[in-house]
Amino acid sequence: MRHYNYLSSKIQFRMSTTIINALTALIDFSDAELAEFMEALKPRKLKKNDFMLEAGTICKSMAIINTGGLRYYSITEKGEQSNWFAFEGEWLGDYESFLTQQPSLHFIQALEDTEIFCLSYDDMQKLYSKGIRFERFGRLIAENLFISTERSRHDLANLPADQRYLNLINRYPNILKRIQIQHIATYLGIQPQSLSRIRRNIASKKN
Amino acid sequence: MRHYNYLSSKIQFRMSTTIINALTALIDFSDAELAEFMEALKPRKLKKNDFMLEAGTICKSMAIINTGGLRYYSITEKGEQSNWFAFEGEWLGDYESFLTQQPSLHFIQALEDTEIFCLSYDDMQKLYSKGIRFERFGRLIAENLFISTERSRHDLANLPADQRYLNLINRYPNILKRIQIQHIATYLGIQPQSLSRIRRNIASKKN
Repeated sequence: MRHYNYLSSKIQFRMSTTIINALTALIDFSDAELAEFMEALKPRKLKKNDFMLEAGTICKSMAIINTGGLRYYSITEKGEQSNWFAFEGEWLGDYESFLTQQPSLHFIQALEDTEIFCLSYDDMQKLYSKGIRFERFGRLIAENLFISTERSRHDLANLPADQRYLNLINRYPNILKRIQIQHIATYLGIQPQSLSRIRRNIASKKN
Repeated sequence: MRHYNYLSSKIQFRMSTTIINALTALIDFSDAELAEFMEALKPRKLKKNDFMLEAGTICKSMAIINTGGLRYYSITEKGEQSNWFAFEGEWLGDYESFLTQQPSLHFIQALEDTEIFCLSYDDMQKLYSKGIRFERFGRLIAENLFISTERSRHDLANLPADQRYLNLINRYPNILKRIQIQHIATYLGIQPQSLSRIRRNIASKKN
């Protein structure tokens, strides 16, 4: 059990181990650095279906999820198109809008009652200037988001729908418990009835 | 005109302004840092159709292109599927394979006679440890690759084929001059005959 001697009791009180673990999984921050990081994180509570972000506005903060889950989606000619989901300990925002400070094309909505901690663009730039480990953290976050996005893009471009579904549930084994089936269908780029057929086929092969 | 006093004449000789401009566009490296970076870059020449990377092998280097162009593709049930193109001053590699040091699913092939400079995984890690500006460079590269990949994923998931085509030629106005039409079609996820129809429709609207 690591002790965070430099963290004020106020921060220790409001920060869960979920957040501390997420921050220290990538970088072995010193206690002082971790305290600086946590001071920059602003808590926000969302009720189920509340929006963290709406299309047309600039994504001013990236959020790390303490409890609950978020859905990242856009509205197209085909209707709502789910593009991403995130749960405890994961970062979410419209990272492109955040990096470019241009209006977002996406909505981010709470799938359930959710508590997030928000890191603003300005605070993130300030952290980057404070030392190499903050820069490294930013690099690793960007690399990890690249890998996730590239896998999603690769699957969409290259794989048939049943394989896209199998990859999704392999990567997120609990996703079916927390996300409505029609959101999973639009994430996979297929009709809900096609997803039902795929799931029946996979179940019958297992038997 | 910037002078690179710290660069040895050997490096100055083999480095073109294309490469220097690409490195300094993101970070205002000192001359000493730029020299360190350039010492790590190893030149490699590819003839048209030579492979920089083949599927099943680990991507051990990221390449920055001095002259020529590269195509990044995979082989699927539908045949060759182009996923990316890169030209002078741009980086290319299988960045996921490079970051994870796992075998690549992709091929990278020269579209024309091409000269690249390769930065190995080990040399990149060494550069990162040398100072905050190298870390920042790595972060900005990862952020830029994220943005490109996310735009591609977003277009594939959300837009009809004609809009995907228009976005591609807006982003890369000269792409039609350097890439065969069937490679563009697979990049867009459509049949070559569908792309021909889209191009005819766009041309007739302009007249």
